[in-house]
Amino acid sequence: MLFGKVIGSVWATQKEEGMDNLKLMVVQPIDFKGREAGQPVIAVDRIGAGVGERVIVSRGSPARTLFSGRNVPIDAMIVGIVDSFDVEDDSGLEEE
Amino acid sequence: MLFGKVIGSVWATQKEEGMDNLKLMVVQPIDFKGREAGQPVIAVDRIGAGVGERVIVSRGSPARTLFSGRNVPIDAMIVGIVDSFDVEDDSGLEEE
Amino acid sequence: MLFGKVIGSVWATQKEEGMDNLKLMVVQPIDFKGREAGQPVIAVDRIGAGVGERVIVSRGSPARTLFSGRNVPIDAMIVGIVDSFDVEDDSGLEEE
Amino acid sequence: MLFGKVIGSVWATQKEEGMDNLKLMVVQPIDFKGREAGQPVIAVDRIGAGVGERVIVSRGSPARTLFSGRNVPIDAMIVGIVDSFDVEDDSGLEEE
Amino acid sequence: MLFGKVIGSVWATQKEEGMDNLKLMVVQPIDFKGREAGQPVIAVDRIGAGVGERVIVSRGSPARTLFSGRNVPIDAMIVGIVDSFDVEDDSGLEEE
Repeated sequence: MLFGKVIGSVWATQKEEGMDNLKLMVVQPIDFKGREAGQPVIAVDRIGAGVGERVIVSRGSPARTLFSGRNVPIDAMIVGIVDSFDVEDDSGLEEE
Repeated sequence: MLFGKVIGSVWATQKEEGMDNLKLMVVQPIDFKGREAGQPVIAVDRIGAGVGERVIVSRGSPARTLFSGRNVPIDAMIVGIVDSFDVEDDSGLEEE
Repeated sequence: MLFGKVIGSVWATQKEEGMDNLKLMVVQPIDFKGREAGQPVIAVDRIGAGVGERVIVSRGSPARTLFSGRNVPIDAMIVGIVDSFDVEDDSGLEEE
Repeated sequence: MLFGKVIGSVWATQKEEGMDNLKLMVVQPIDFKGREAGQPVIAVDRIGAGVGERVIVSRGSPARTLFSGRNVPIDAMIVGIVDSFDVEDDSGLEEE
Repeated sequence: MLFGKVIGSVWATQKEEGMDNLKLMVVQPIDFKGREAGQPVIAVDRIGAGVGERVIVSRGSPARTLFSGRNVPIDAMIVGIVDSFDVEDDSGLEEE
């Protein structure tokens, strides 16, 4: 999964089947020092992630397993809001 | 999902099974400042996205779930036309 | 899907189950100005794509849906031979 | 699969269905000379990988096959702890 | 599929279910001029690929289709050993 920061949201009126009632957030992948790490991803949120929160995003078909009874054509989902992390680094230990 | 701008379309007469009657659009991934963010993607469109519109593209097997009764060998689909977005940025808030 | 140009072919005698009788082409991803856009991909061809032709390649599990009755361990397939495209660009309109 | 080094862990209280009781480790992809090779990945661990250990990470839907009876929306899993490797290089043979 | 050169192997004693008795090779993606093209991949080999051989690697869930009766959490597999290729290039024709 990727680590990222929620930086906003997106609205679409005209959409494909299965896309109704999904909250679409924009997540900027970051590294554990907070630096940007690649392009933003649009991910579905069902757990109440807010702008500024750090989240875990799952991509590809795993993102869709939670909608098993429906055809939901999404490829990215916020699966956790990060409370804390403990990541070691060559230059020592970053903690939060 | 990726955020992009529709920049054109592609036609193919000779094609694989399952590719008939699909409208193939060219989508340039962009960031939320409108800058190019990677190489163009060819995505199927069934919701009427036009050149110049900003869209949400789903990739991989999720793109195919909408054709569940048929074998459609596609890996990218336009799943929403973006009306607006609200994305925060280190340098403030961009709104549209 | 990716846009590319067929630049050659590859032969393998020793191969996995399900790989028999597949024509393996080398496709160089290109942008719509003809510039290289990433590393070559080896893709299965069943529609007669020849060297020099521009093609559409589908990757991942969608590439395998056409072999639904068999276990074919491929992750890229040529799904269309491009007749023409019409792609707009910041500097105007490229047509072909 | 990717080769990486476990550099930490992440905690999330608020999470999606199927994410309970999963140990989430941070894995830094590295090459066989120990150099960083891309952005860190958050991967599920069930085999006791510790910080500093070199591991093999499987991504995408394969990562989820081990939870076949449940809907677990993950896209990366630690599938092995590396004891040793033997990798040749243009400049000779690196062994460990 | 990707084109690569086998550069070594990896051993893991502690591993996930379904990973037993798999030969794990390290494959360096290369282009058709033999230049490195991205980071090494760990791929399962069942067809006897040796160090120095050029191979075709399939990634993602297709890699797993050959183990259809078992849950094997792999995302890359060597599906062919390359005998020869014929790849054209702007500067002429490379043959082997």
